[in-house]
Amino acid sequence: MAFEDMWEALRPIGRADGGGYRRFSWTAADRECRAWFTEEARSRGLTVERDPNGNLFAWWDAEKNTGASMGGLIASVASIAADAMTGDFHGEPVTGRRDAVLTGSHLDSVPDGGAYDGPLGVVSAFAAIDLLRERGATPRRPIGVAVFAEEEGARFGVACLGSRLATGAIDPARARGLRDADGVTWGEAMAAEGYDPDAIGADPQLLSLNCFVELHVEQGRALTAPVGLASAIWPHGRWRFDFTGEADHAGTTRLADRRDPMLPFARTVLAAREAAARHDAVATVGKVRVTPNGVNAIPSSVAAWLDARAPSEEAVRATVADVRAAAREAAGRDRVEVSLSEESYTEVVDFHADLRDRLAKTLGDPPVLPTGAGHDAGILSAHLPTAMLFVRNPTGVSHAPAEHAELTDCLAGVEALADVLDELACR
Amino acid sequence: MAFEDMWEALRPIGRADGGGYRRFSWTAADRECRAWFTEEARSRGLTVERDPNGNLFAWWDAEKNTGASMGGLIASVASIAADAMTGDFHGEPVTGRRDAVLTGSHLDSVPDGGAYDGPLGVVSAFAAIDLLRERGATPRRPIGVAVFAEEEGARFGVACLGSRLATGAIDPARARGLRDADGVTWGEAMAAEGYDPDAIGADPQLLSLNCFVELHVEQGRALTAPVGLASAIWPHGRWRFDFTGEADHAGTTRLADRRDPMLPFARTVLAAREAAARHDAVATVGKVRVTPNGVNAIPSSVAAWLDARAPSEEAVRATVADVRAAAREAAGRDRVEVSLSEESYTEVVDFHADLRDRLAKTLGDPPVLPTGAGHDAGILSAHLPTAMLFVRNPTGVSHAPAEHAELTDCLAGVEALADVLDELACR
Repeated sequence: MAFEDMWEALRPIGRADGGGYRRFSWTAADRECRAWFTEEARSRGLTVERDPNGNLFAWWDAEKNTGASMGGLIASVASIAADAMTGDFHGEPVTGRRDAVLTGSHLDSVPDGGAYDGPLGVVSAFAAIDLLRERGATPRRPIGVAVFAEEEGARFGVACLGSRLATGAIDPARARGLRDADGVTWGEAMAAEGYDPDAIGADPQLLSLNCFVELHVEQGRALTAPVGLASAIWPHGRWRFDFTGEADHAGTTRLADRRDPMLPFARTVLAAREAAARHDAVATVGKVRVTPNGVNAIPSSVAAWLDARAPSEEAVRATVADVRAAAREAAGRDRVEVSLSEESYTEVVDFHADLRDRLAKTLGDPPVLPTGAGHDAGILSAHLPTAMLFVRNPTGVSHAPAEHAELTDCLAGVEALADVLDELACR
Repeated sequence: MAFEDMWEALRPIGRADGGGYRRFSWTAADRECRAWFTEEARSRGLTVERDPNGNLFAWWDAEKNTGASMGGLIASVASIAADAMTGDFHGEPVTGRRDAVLTGSHLDSVPDGGAYDGPLGVVSAFAAIDLLRERGATPRRPIGVAVFAEEEGARFGVACLGSRLATGAIDPARARGLRDADGVTWGEAMAAEGYDPDAIGADPQLLSLNCFVELHVEQGRALTAPVGLASAIWPHGRWRFDFTGEADHAGTTRLADRRDPMLPFARTVLAAREAAARHDAVATVGKVRVTPNGVNAIPSSVAAWLDARAPSEEAVRATVADVRAAAREAAGRDRVEVSLSEESYTEVVDFHADLRDRLAKTLGDPPVLPTGAGHDAGILSAHLPTAMLFVRNPTGVSHAPAEHAELTDCLAGVEALADVLDELACR
């Protein structure tokens, strides 16, 4: 399918009222996205593989006549990947860095997310392969298109879960036990889709690749050219506050007798904004869970999630420390208990300087900029040379239905990605 | 069944993890509660009727040999009430006050509510009838046991919906269109249970009863004797605040560019507490709905419900006015829109003085106290003489799993209710 036809096919999948997307891991929408990916890959003669962690890969390997496979990347046999198991590399010992180039992104979304965050990198990867073929290019190294699972962490709370598992950045036992809002675990959810939860964990072959280049829509308004290169990802993390008070009747309980967790929660929301401003960071409370959430009941508990990011780790840590102090003081004032847990933290990522400089030269010195958004590229960058291309976002809106990129900018992104893959894999 | 056996039969219905109850209107738990009620009534030879609004009635009419019916109270034919349609009063013109005494309460709950709020009044009514029969009393007037629907307003947002409909206190078209959190309307929900939503509305026969006496667990710590009498219900209401900002990415949107509705919501929570303290009222924000409620997304909107009550209407109105002013100021500060709607408001209820004095004499001058909690008795009091009995609540906890009443106090309540019914219906 051509670029615009791929968008057309993806458009209805997981689309909610209001136009936003709800493509959560291991749901029907996720299954449809995976089917779309497999179909697009097969229509191009690419070999589809899945790793044990829910990540998908489509390989163009000219030496193997487009039917061969990375083999070693496979850790469990899927029906869709059955042919891949016969590939030359299956069972071969891992001897060091596998000389292949990986691109791609993710297909899952935040609740009511935009169309581009994730899918743009996957659609552009297929379109870039089409363009390379039109140009008559032949990969000297296999080119892979990846779809990483649970990048947003929207269902199970840990962002980039698929790439964290594959790189060993998260303990498999912890990942297996992560629960969604209904109490379903990651292990249970993936088992229901035919995966073996006991097989998840680090994938040495992924870590041995030549390099990974992720194309992504920019998520702020910092990029004024159609395409840019990433310099760094801000350190960022998620912290959960649990305020526990005492449920009681909203009409008959005197103010002085209350232990209402909504009050310290509210003070914590305001403290987070103030702390972020103080430390040149950003901090957001975007998710709240109130129990029992009844109009005429004082809540028994309020759980709130803090997202904090800044150019430096010091600024992130100082912001979170300030918010924690404010939450404790506010909780004490209303005789409410509060506990804090770090759900995820990602250190600053400075993308591979040599690779970035090489791509800058290939692309004619586009703008180079940092981002506050986390990406699978940030996780992989601890293990192999990694770069990111950004496509301009005219309004800066992201994680919302209004997220947008102009078609001409998207096509410029495809062209840039094709140039990059040509440079890295075909010369 | 004896008093404790009735509790045992009710205990598992709609019980959630944590021991609280989730008995919402027109759900499976509600159906089980209704089946329990019907079974208890029939086992006593009482006639079960339902009105078109979802309210149930069980009648002990000695003159009709325990098989007769109020007839006129029926506006739709249920299978459980088919025999009632043959009652003497069916089709007779309403000539004025129907000389019958009604007691009872409700069986629905708030989310994670306690066991006693509502059911105590229904269980005690059956137990009081048993006691009257043991004593050899014979009602000169029919005695009815009522179960009013959606008293808590937990599913459709308007408290005392069943009694409001039956007394004409709410427009049937508005009630039909009330939606639950999933968008299901009251009309659709009742239709799914075999009711005709077009038949709902005022029931002249209910309004013509002699009197209504509701027994209820006390919901604060104000009652230190086993049983008390209500003087008044504070004026109270529910208001919904909708804060609408702009969804965006939590990592890439500068603080200055944000229109985050969580911030004015938080200020409004704190303002509500301050306003309540200022006006000797109580105010609670117990229910919140965040959209899209994702960790890494600035919310697009936050809906919050305010419950406010006070001894006087002036104090309630002043509290809400202060909260509204604070919400508007806070919303303006963060370029967020805010709208306010009154979901329900109930004026102060001063219970019928003559009836209260008569019952005080019958019961040997128990404590007389007001309450901040709304009740169906408050709705009915605008139309017929109404009284309430309270049973002591040792901890004051209500609308929570820990809600409790001692068995000896509950049995004192049954005795008191029997004495009251004897006084009102048997002499």
